[in-house]
Amino acid sequence: MIGKLIEFPHVSEDDGGLTYMEGKKEIPFEIKRCFYIYNVPENERRANHASVTTDFVLIAMNGSVCVELNTGKEKTIYTLTNRNCGLYVPKNTWMVTRDFTPDAVLLVLASTDYKSGKYMDDYQEFLKQGGSR
Amino acid sequence: MIGKLIEFPHVSEDDGGLTYMEGKKEIPFEIKRCFYIYNVPENERRANHASVTTDFVLIAMNGSVCVELNTGKEKTIYTLTNRNCGLYVPKNTWMVTRDFTPDAVLLVLASTDYKSGKYMDDYQEFLKQGGSR
Repeated sequence: MIGKLIEFPHVSEDDGGLTYMEGKKEIPFEIKRCFYIYNVPENERRANHASVTTDFVLIAMNGSVCVELNTGKEKTIYTLTNRNCGLYVPKNTWMVTRDFTPDAVLLVLASTDYKSGKYMDDYQEFLKQGGSR
Repeated sequence: MIGKLIEFPHVSEDDGGLTYMEGKKEIPFEIKRCFYIYNVPENERRANHASVTTDFVLIAMNGSVCVELNTGKEKTIYTLTNRNCGLYVPKNTWMVTRDFTPDAVLLVLASTDYKSGKYMDDYQEFLKQGGSR
């Protein structure tokens, strides 16, 4: 099993729902950066790389998204459909996101700023280097 | 004018949209905590308090939300409809969120963890203490 689902604390009351999380608590790192991905056409794939430096937590804030994680030896596929759950993706994991529903908004919390982040986007090279260690 | 709109860097390409932000950069503080609010019934108001300790950035990740900021002397009303824009709300600002569309998801980035946060939820007391300084 690659990656790890985190259930966030949440309350649902008559006046709405609230989900919350803190860096170094529910999120296993300090939140240095956020980004989100949306309006992804059907059949389009995003990511398709491994980060050498950065851990992520992915949350489907709206709609649903499929996330494929791959160490080079093992693959795990998640379908994120619930904004109360995040998927922790440790560094050196090959990641593909796909099957975005038209209304999907994927929030990503990252452990490094963009400048410190380093990506590997050649899958053969990723395998050659032994994938996830 | 109370609060400040921040336009986030974003790219829109054939394979989807991406919006990004970093703590201490686009976000004027370190991101210690995130929470999001959703499924808020029409005519319901949320927040209706001032944080004594915490700065926020509010982002309508989906749908739209109206945010009323109040220093006790001056009021500014924003309608957040664009996920490429965040609303910076400094501490000691009375805040009401309302008019959530049924599909609205309001993401809030916060400058403190929950334990360090302190709220004032008596508006008369807020005024008595002089509102925002």
